[in-house]
Amino acid sequence: MAPVTVTLYGIYLSTCTRTVMTALEEKNVPYKFVIVDVTKGEGKQPAHLARQPFGQVPALEDGDVKMFETRAIVRYIANKWASQGTDLLGKTAAEKALTDTWTEVESQNYDPPISVIVAQRVFRAMHGKQADEAIVAQETTKLEKVLAVYDAHLADKEYLNGSSFSAADLSHLPNTDYYVNKGGGEVVLKKYPNVWAWWQRISSRPSWQKVAAMN
Amino acid sequence: MAPVTVTLYGIYLSTCTRTVMTALEEKNVPYKFVIVDVTKGEGKQPAHLARQPFGQVPALEDGDVKMFETRAIVRYIANKWASQGTDLLGKTAAEKALTDTWTEVESQNYDPPISVIVAQRVFRAMHGKQADEAIVAQETTKLEKVLAVYDAHLADKEYLNGSSFSAADLSHLPNTDYYVNKGGGEVVLKKYPNVWAWWQRISSRPSWQKVAAMN
Repeated sequence: MAPVTVTLYGIYLSTCTRTVMTALEEKNVPYKFVIVDVTKGEGKQPAHLARQPFGQVPALEDGDVKMFETRAIVRYIANKWASQGTDLLGKTAAEKALTDTWTEVESQNYDPPISVIVAQRVFRAMHGKQADEAIVAQETTKLEKVLAVYDAHLADKEYLNGSSFSAADLSHLPNTDYYVNKGGGEVVLKKYPNVWAWWQRISSRPSWQKVAAMN
Repeated sequence: MAPVTVTLYGIYLSTCTRTVMTALEEKNVPYKFVIVDVTKGEGKQPAHLARQPFGQVPALEDGDVKMFETRAIVRYIANKWASQGTDLLGKTAAEKALTDTWTEVESQNYDPPISVIVAQRVFRAMHGKQADEAIVAQETTKLEKVLAVYDAHLADKEYLNGSSFSAADLSHLPNTDYYVNKGGGEVVLKKYPNVWAWWQRISSRPSWQKVAAMN
């Protein structure tokens, strides 16, 4: 068995940490997981700031490669281990371009509203706090405009890049799971039938089922 | 001379369009430029929505590759034309990882505050409107925290990935130029000497000088 070269620094509850874990599972890359409990200030300790100067998680080390930022890490994993596990890049040049385009759409359009809703409805509840429902309503309006675009895009596609599960789909898993299963989002997503069918498709993957059960 | 295969849809004033133009210049890739005047509603016309379903610019077509999202387009250009013009990826695996990490840092940490300041101080002024200085002050506080991290990162580096100009540096050019030259940002950037030296280094590139002069 190949030696474990990858160390992932993060925390189980972090959506970004979960995204990277899911990529490592899809690619069958063994890794060492080191918990950096950002809820207890461990992100701001010098050892972690040397890995991630903003004090956030995750960060990844693989030999002399030291990096952070979730979507960059996922691309690194998808490219370095391109020939093993699930192809996360897409088969043709056109598909690869769509994989990267829709990973950026997640970053620029999908993540901003859904991460605020998840922070309000899920993470505040974990600390016994109420959600600010005015903020949730405002961000839900933004999210629904984005979901309408996804619904049209997915009308003739199984996955965001066309025909295959990729890094683009993968990046949507952790926030959408919190939103649907703990944040009241199921009723919203079901208004967009192509989005809902896609969600069933991607959330049933063994990689995600395994990561979602970790804590 | 090779046939022109690339069509870029955008508008000269758009920071994102300028980023892609600069990448094409650095790689010596000839392209056809088609103006989509989003200030006159052309982004929401069906022909453009088919290219960019959110109605924004830029979008790029290269044969059967049809894509949008600036940072994805820049990665596409950097990879497809890897062997010509400036290497925008980085030489080693460690440098490539840093290129992608710091492109994401621009997206997640640098762009959010600076783009709000530029919208207030530069784009509102173009329409004869005053900036909301309370918003500028709030975003400047956020930006300075980010600049402090950049200043430490650049203390021993010429460029963000270590030793070579890359897609990571390039993605900072359009917003920083507006901020420094039209938005009052010079006094802020000069508080961070390593950032200021890096800014001088990257903004003097012929590719950027050419794009900045277009209109």
